[in-house]
Amino acid sequence: MSKHALPVTRAENFPDWYQAVVRDADMAEASPVRGCMVIKPWGYGVWELIQRQLDDRIKETGHENCYFPLFIPMSFIAKEAQHVEGFAKEMAVVTHHRLKNVNGKLEVDPEAELEEPLIVRPTSETIIGDAFNRWVQSYRDLPLLINQWANVVRWEMRTRLFLRTAEFLWQEGHTAHADEAEAREHTLRMLEVYREFAETVLAMPVIAGEKPENERFPGADNTYSIEAMMQDGKALQAGTSHYLGTHFAEAQDIRYQDKDGGQTLCHTTSWGVSTRMIGGVIMTHGDDDGLRLPPAIAPKQIVIVPMLRDKPEDADVLAYCDALQKDLAKRSAFGVGLRAFVDKKATRSADKRWNWVRRGAPLILEIGPRDAAGGQVTFMRRDQLRAGDKIASQALARDAFVDAAVGLLEEIQAALYADAKARLDGAITPIASFADLETYFGAAAEDDEAAAAFKGWARVSWSKPTGDALEAVAARLKALKLTIRNAPMAQPKAFGACIFTDAPGVEEVLIARSY
Amino acid sequence: MSKHALPVTRAENFPDWYQAVVRDADMAEASPVRGCMVIKPWGYGVWELIQRQLDDRIKETGHENCYFPLFIPMSFIAKEAQHVEGFAKEMAVVTHHRLKNVNGKLEVDPEAELEEPLIVRPTSETIIGDAFNRWVQSYRDLPLLINQWANVVRWEMRTRLFLRTAEFLWQEGHTAHADEAEAREHTLRMLEVYREFAETVLAMPVIAGEKPENERFPGADNTYSIEAMMQDGKALQAGTSHYLGTHFAEAQDIRYQDKDGGQTLCHTTSWGVSTRMIGGVIMTHGDDDGLRLPPAIAPKQIVIVPMLRDKPEDADVLAYCDALQKDLAKRSAFGVGLRAFVDKKATRSADKRWNWVRRGAPLILEIGPRDAAGGQVTFMRRDQLRAGDKIASQALARDAFVDAAVGLLEEIQAALYADAKARLDGAITPIASFADLETYFGAAAEDDEAAAAFKGWARVSWSKPTGDALEAVAARLKALKLTIRNAPMAQPKAFGACIFTDAPGVEEVLIARSY
Repeated sequence: MSKHALPVTRAENFPDWYQAVVRDADMAEASPVRGCMVIKPWGYGVWELIQRQLDDRIKETGHENCYFPLFIPMSFIAKEAQHVEGFAKEMAVVTHHRLKNVNGKLEVDPEAELEEPLIVRPTSETIIGDAFNRWVQSYRDLPLLINQWANVVRWEMRTRLFLRTAEFLWQEGHTAHADEAEAREHTLRMLEVYREFAETVLAMPVIAGEKPENERFPGADNTYSIEAMMQDGKALQAGTSHYLGTHFAEAQDIRYQDKDGGQTLCHTTSWGVSTRMIGGVIMTHGDDDGLRLPPAIAPKQIVIVPMLRDKPEDADVLAYCDALQKDLAKRSAFGVGLRAFVDKKATRSADKRWNWVRRGAPLILEIGPRDAAGGQVTFMRRDQLRAGDKIASQALARDAFVDAAVGLLEEIQAALYADAKARLDGAITPIASFADLETYFGAAAEDDEAAAAFKGWARVSWSKPTGDALEAVAARLKALKLTIRNAPMAQPKAFGACIFTDAPGVEEVLIARSY
Repeated sequence: MSKHALPVTRAENFPDWYQAVVRDADMAEASPVRGCMVIKPWGYGVWELIQRQLDDRIKETGHENCYFPLFIPMSFIAKEAQHVEGFAKEMAVVTHHRLKNVNGKLEVDPEAELEEPLIVRPTSETIIGDAFNRWVQSYRDLPLLINQWANVVRWEMRTRLFLRTAEFLWQEGHTAHADEAEAREHTLRMLEVYREFAETVLAMPVIAGEKPENERFPGADNTYSIEAMMQDGKALQAGTSHYLGTHFAEAQDIRYQDKDGGQTLCHTTSWGVSTRMIGGVIMTHGDDDGLRLPPAIAPKQIVIVPMLRDKPEDADVLAYCDALQKDLAKRSAFGVGLRAFVDKKATRSADKRWNWVRRGAPLILEIGPRDAAGGQVTFMRRDQLRAGDKIASQALARDAFVDAAVGLLEEIQAALYADAKARLDGAITPIASFADLETYFGAAAEDDEAAAAFKGWARVSWSKPTGDALEAVAARLKALKLTIRNAPMAQPKAFGACIFTDAPGVEEVLIARSY
């Protein structure tokens, strides 16, 4: 039996551990609808905090939010032939608009077939492009900077809560620009917004870089991503930004009248992040006791557990906790009101402690009659829960704790980032040949366990082949269950030989197993 | 030609006027997907402000947000037989999960038919009930107070932007309680949240009351609504709250272990408001120059239009406007930062003025070189735009304007409410007989125009018939295109005879034409 709060540890079985965190932290659960999840209050609270803080950044960079239809006519998808080749074959298709009772049994009414099937949006490029075609008339209308928060559906056979589900929640930005330079600059600006957001708000260090040609979004000239390292060494693509050239503008005829009266095609971009980010947070910060939430996205940052015993002094303890909560809530942390909460549920105090440990509340306070009488606060930092075999509980005078609270939350945020950053930096290994790559990732190892052991990422020089040569590289990597994640924005000045082609290297790329 | 900013006035043709406001205020537009709308930035900005302020109230009353699947298995709908009788026959049905290329043409893959069709949620009672069945174990888990912000789809043949569309955005609250009294109290508490929200935030006076039996949500024991009066005298149901008894708990087997160890059925409630509210705001506050937005939901509360002339002094004017905007943005209005904006778009100043008039920005400033040089602010109040034939523009010293700005916004919010409240109060007429009702609503009038002229609502006594007797009443009203809106919460102590049955009255109800 595990000595920890979860029934399985990361070392024992990482995928099972992930599922245990999602379940025991009460983040989400499978639903009766194949591939769709129910996001529970604690998980959705994290998403709301992600939304609000990212939305602020999206608005600060000049975007306005809109809402476009859930359904996309099949003819729109057909128009985007490239699009379809990419990912859009498995989609939820609406074919009828009525149910009817047949002898007391509900059936799809065959007479209510739609003239044209509707696709539940897997992404909104085509339907938004159709609107851009109407909205863009003159150079005065540019740049057009739009964002949408929405649910999208991609039929998936193998699903995993947050990481891969048929329906998920995301934000998709779509912009149109007068020229290439501005559109390219915007693509990179939004990539940088994602990087800064991931590192500041999620405390999740990432590597921003460009995806290789074979991993581009269909129809994009360039695709950029932020890649985060999970504790099993795998990469998680946590956000993407695409420069789409004029391909989508051509397909949708998005043109503007320039200052000379000519009709010119727009250059467009799109970029998005999704509830997948929450999976990244879990696998970046979780430990064998459950989730550890960065305070900036913790729905409750400080949880106060009153130690009640069904005795008269309970009232004093509760009053003490309530007053403490009120004083904490007056403080401001990360630019908004501090989120403090008194857990009054009628369950055992010990159960409450472990409940909040598993959910990853950053500071957990346990207040008993002695604390109340002595004007003291006993607390645990979730990021430093254990000291050897013991729980590392600390105490401070009440007012000193209230004064220290915001600083403690900031410390926890910084500590979680620092931990993950050290892990990331320490697990990217320069590799100089394909043979070394095979050895590094344990491809030769007979036993699965050794092959699957933590390896991190490789950083290698390559000659940036294209077309068939690139497909050959991808195939060699695929045999090792590897992919090129991206070419980091920060590049050295000189390169070794390409590990795939032996030709002179022109770029360094990161190679990893991935989600 | 209209002397106003819109091509059609309310008096000329109210439905056309409504469409003109939606279009010319840039709120929303029809999409290429039948029945679905595109909500444009100005309209979505209003929705975001509605969401945030209502969400705060929903959380203050103890609810947590979740997210449930978009799709509902057909068997779930079938289980809710009553439900289906009500409104759920016209629904978007997903039957397949793949498209395929057949000779270069995209088609629905017949091999990818779902075993069970999925319904795009028209409401989430059944899928949330399924979760409640798992989540409610013991009395300690109650009350369970959940809310969801989501898109829903109801296949509609005749659509109208915001008022009736196939897809719309809403919030749906769902709660489970240990006993009837608590559930009933909660149903009314949420009704009161809606009333207060509509009146305070939307400046839209409403009458809260109970719907008659024939207008109940299918499966509800009691349905309550808030009803607002549009400027054409029609009623708009702007929010509903339902006490569902134990019907849904029975269908989904939502039971809790009580303190004695017994298994007891929960009592549940549900309640919702939608983007329809925006239609209500338009028809409550709009005038012949376009929309007038209550400042609490105006995405930009103060719009500064610099009067630029392509001359050297333009730079001074812009600098003056920017500094003014910054000072205004430091102020707080309605509990959050004041939203001030400088419109720098490269279009004519006069076009900008009328653009913001039509969009209903509460305060519109026009700043020319003389204002900048003289330290002055020239402004229009959108709620008092005209004085006779002229535009009512005012001027204040710059600092005096900055100091007055929040007060002006509060005045505008109050004035819009007061206007609408006076209209509502003045247009509810007590009617004592069915013959008078017919006359009042112009049923006998030969000409359509007289029949359609502004009439407001009737307040009548009735004996509250049920079953077939109630159906007979509804049919008599339907012949006059009327419905019973609700029985207001505030009732007199004594009642006249029922205008339908002549039996002693037991309640007063409101009767109106409606959206």
